[in-house]
Amino acid sequence: MPINRQVVLASRPDGEPVPGNFRLQQGAVPEPKEGEMLVRVRAISMEPAIRGWLDDNDKNYFEPLPIGAVLRAISVGQVIASNLPGYAPGDFISGLIGWEDYSIASKDTVLLQKLDIAEDMPLTYYVGALGGSGLTAIVGLDVIGRIKPGETVVISAAVGAVGHVAAQYAKHRGCRAVGIVGSASKARVALDRIGYDAVVNYRDAANLEQAIRAACPEGVDVYYDNVGGPTLDAMLNNMKTFGRIICCGMVSSYNRPDDPPPLYNSWQIVARELELKGFLLYSYRDRLPAALATNLEGIRAGWLKPIENKRVGIDQAAELFCALMSGRTTGKSVLEMDLPEQAG
Amino acid sequence: MPINRQVVLASRPDGEPVPGNFRLQQGAVPEPKEGEMLVRVRAISMEPAIRGWLDDNDKNYFEPLPIGAVLRAISVGQVIASNLPGYAPGDFISGLIGWEDYSIASKDTVLLQKLDIAEDMPLTYYVGALGGSGLTAIVGLDVIGRIKPGETVVISAAVGAVGHVAAQYAKHRGCRAVGIVGSASKARVALDRIGYDAVVNYRDAANLEQAIRAACPEGVDVYYDNVGGPTLDAMLNNMKTFGRIICCGMVSSYNRPDDPPPLYNSWQIVARELELKGFLLYSYRDRLPAALATNLEGIRAGWLKPIENKRVGIDQAAELFCALMSGRTTGKSVLEMDLPEQAG
Repeated sequence: MPINRQVVLASRPDGEPVPGNFRLQQGAVPEPKEGEMLVRVRAISMEPAIRGWLDDNDKNYFEPLPIGAVLRAISVGQVIASNLPGYAPGDFISGLIGWEDYSIASKDTVLLQKLDIAEDMPLTYYVGALGGSGLTAIVGLDVIGRIKPGETVVISAAVGAVGHVAAQYAKHRGCRAVGIVGSASKARVALDRIGYDAVVNYRDAANLEQAIRAACPEGVDVYYDNVGGPTLDAMLNNMKTFGRIICCGMVSSYNRPDDPPPLYNSWQIVARELELKGFLLYSYRDRLPAALATNLEGIRAGWLKPIENKRVGIDQAAELFCALMSGRTTGKSVLEMDLPEQAG
Repeated sequence: MPINRQVVLASRPDGEPVPGNFRLQQGAVPEPKEGEMLVRVRAISMEPAIRGWLDDNDKNYFEPLPIGAVLRAISVGQVIASNLPGYAPGDFISGLIGWEDYSIASKDTVLLQKLDIAEDMPLTYYVGALGGSGLTAIVGLDVIGRIKPGETVVISAAVGAVGHVAAQYAKHRGCRAVGIVGSASKARVALDRIGYDAVVNYRDAANLEQAIRAACPEGVDVYYDNVGGPTLDAMLNNMKTFGRIICCGMVSSYNRPDDPPPLYNSWQIVARELELKGFLLYSYRDRLPAALATNLEGIRAGWLKPIENKRVGIDQAAELFCALMSGRTTGKSVLEMDLPEQAG
């Protein structure tokens, strides 16, 4: 009889989360009711947005998770049993489900969709370059950034889940790609593995604004902002007139929701006639099929090389998430589930 | 023989400008060279943007004015003598010229254009409701705000040069208009003379964010931002998803360019998928004729009632500008020039 291992919230993080904020527990495998299906969780997408659910305040765009509740994430799973019309055992799905071996999904599951897994693609890519973060890169650059060949595109969190795909797409589209990173090792990844034209290490720079200017002496057309805070501030003073800023995430705020870093240079929005636009992928559902096709083509053609920060086994989940939130990771953080019933 | 009275910069303001920063002097009437024309200045537009030229720093979008130089503004004048093809004595023009009786203009004069003054309109309206500020209201709401009937539009500096026109146009277009002002007397002007549906006095409000929420319980579709700073911050927490913010001015920064007020709520740009767009009118020249026609029609039809803060005589220029920058004025601040050669 299989058991259901689950990761639950043990305590609310104070700032940066630590593994002790999470607890592994065992429960019964749930029974799908009418209109539900039982899903074997296969790959869990670790995302900074999850951090927002761990605080008990009203500043986020999701309800806070209760203490003792199972963590959730956009995940890929395979249907085991289904009472939901249109879904059959063996089908692959993605949607917002638990950090657990077995999860219940229904038509009310957030972002539920059936997945057509290509035979030549690893399953984990469907929470990465072929999932939310990879499609976020493409749709953000196309719809909000409206990138054109020859433009200078700066990307923060440059080797992260979104950033490393965005950079390769910007290069593929004929742009100059400049990355902002937080360590020398990430700078090497950005230049050597991802193909950035130039990199700025914000921890190294005595003056971030000037360091960006040195890397982009003619100014910046499009800034793909994944971090907000002082980096966004430095970028505001480096944009060209009519520059576009894709506001996709503000990681710098996630660990400190009650003490967000201030912006001082908002006057530049007027002076440089900038456009800042908040961007959440699932408001652009009509763009998803084309973006998925772009990235599939990119991987097959070789212009897109996904980078994964992958760990295997549910006992690694908390550590993987905490590493992501510490800013130390490279590429897409994905937890591939182990399958204990197959091992034993 | 006429003399040319001029207002020059005597000293750089420390924060809010005072009349002592300016000096009235007399000079000779200049002679127009080839390609130039001599213009009798008739109405000077007092604008917060002028404040930016008075500081010696690189943070503005214009070069700083040297000490001793003649102040400049977008003004309406009448051609006295012309060596510039296409312009003849008697023609009315507007453009960036001096705070003086007589000014030289050429094809290089910033924003030079010939004006067709309607017989039923006061000349001063052409620096106000029929000039830059009035057209800024219309183009901002149409192009950046994309207002639709039934939407809630919040306007800061609500009784100012742009704000009072924007409110009347928003109402004309079927929107709910809510104003943000800084005094009880302005609140009365907003409600009684301009026709706002509701007004928030930011100096009265114990909590500006909550005061705005009380006035806009269903959230805000479009925010016409003329002030930036803490008001923009409070608005970020009151916008509806996909709300648009017209970033037209940040008066809160103009008197303190080295110490701009910080923004803390920029995370809401992502969470609410907001669009902030910097807006300077003269990037939208193709929209100006239609906007002018809209406001002419509005004044004649009665839905647009321009408010002027008008003073007469060049000796009033410095005081008028300082009053504008103190935030105490209502409507469009315009200096109508006296004509001493006609008086004597």
